[in-house]
Amino acid sequence: MLKVEHIGIAVKNLEESNELFTKLFNSKPYKQEAVASEGVTTSFFKMGETKIELLEATNEDSAIAKFLSKKGEGIHHIAYEVADIKAEMKRLSREGFQILNEQPKKGADNKLVCFLHPKTTNGVLVELCQEIK
Amino acid sequence: MLKVEHIGIAVKNLEESNELFTKLFNSKPYKQEAVASEGVTTSFFKMGETKIELLEATNEDSAIAKFLSKKGEGIHHIAYEVADIKAEMKRLSREGFQILNEQPKKGADNKLVCFLHPKTTNGVLVELCQEIK
Repeated sequence: MLKVEHIGIAVKNLEESNELFTKLFNSKPYKQEAVASEGVTTSFFKMGETKIELLEATNEDSAIAKFLSKKGEGIHHIAYEVADIKAEMKRLSREGFQILNEQPKKGADNKLVCFLHPKTTNGVLVELCQEIK
Repeated sequence: MLKVEHIGIAVKNLEESNELFTKLFNSKPYKQEAVASEGVTTSFFKMGETKIELLEATNEDSAIAKFLSKKGEGIHHIAYEVADIKAEMKRLSREGFQILNEQPKKGADNKLVCFLHPKTTNGVLVELCQEIK
């Protein structure tokens, strides 16, 4: 794994949270992007080599809507950049981590992504991501 | 704010979690440190310019022990490096964030730190930290 690519934070209202995080970071989000397949709208802040991704649910069946109703607003996942997502998925599977999707899928921000089940990672939802070239 | 300095993860058993994260990251923690004032033992993994800090409670009254009994294992806080912690504390206080300690205090890893109350930061416990020179 190369770096913390982004930290995903679940929020109820993206517009209000954009304002809040703009005050916190003293800088504005540099883009906003809907990911229809995941039922979310996202916005991104730059923080060194890492991004902070705010996630608002756009439908009630999305993972973010479920997270918000169960746990409320807060950190949803940590995403690590990897050089070869398929090789890492194989390695982690062998090490006993439970991978939530068998094949990498298209995520926000032009990435291939997969998720590891938090029950095998100390309660932390882990995303692996690799830039699509 | 300059970068994500570290992400703090609350764990029940540091030794077991060190093994788990060593498998996850395919690299070992580079140091372990007790912070008696906070009632924790910590270990650190390097991940690009960011560190992953595992936190085990060493007494029942510590913030980590309370977090674990309330929420279980998982992400506890995000720490952002700042150039001037006192100036950032003033700025954020003016912006309406609730700062949990009036003066910066000594944290792990040779830092001055302060925390922002999660009720003012979308449920995310935010730490500011500045290297002690």
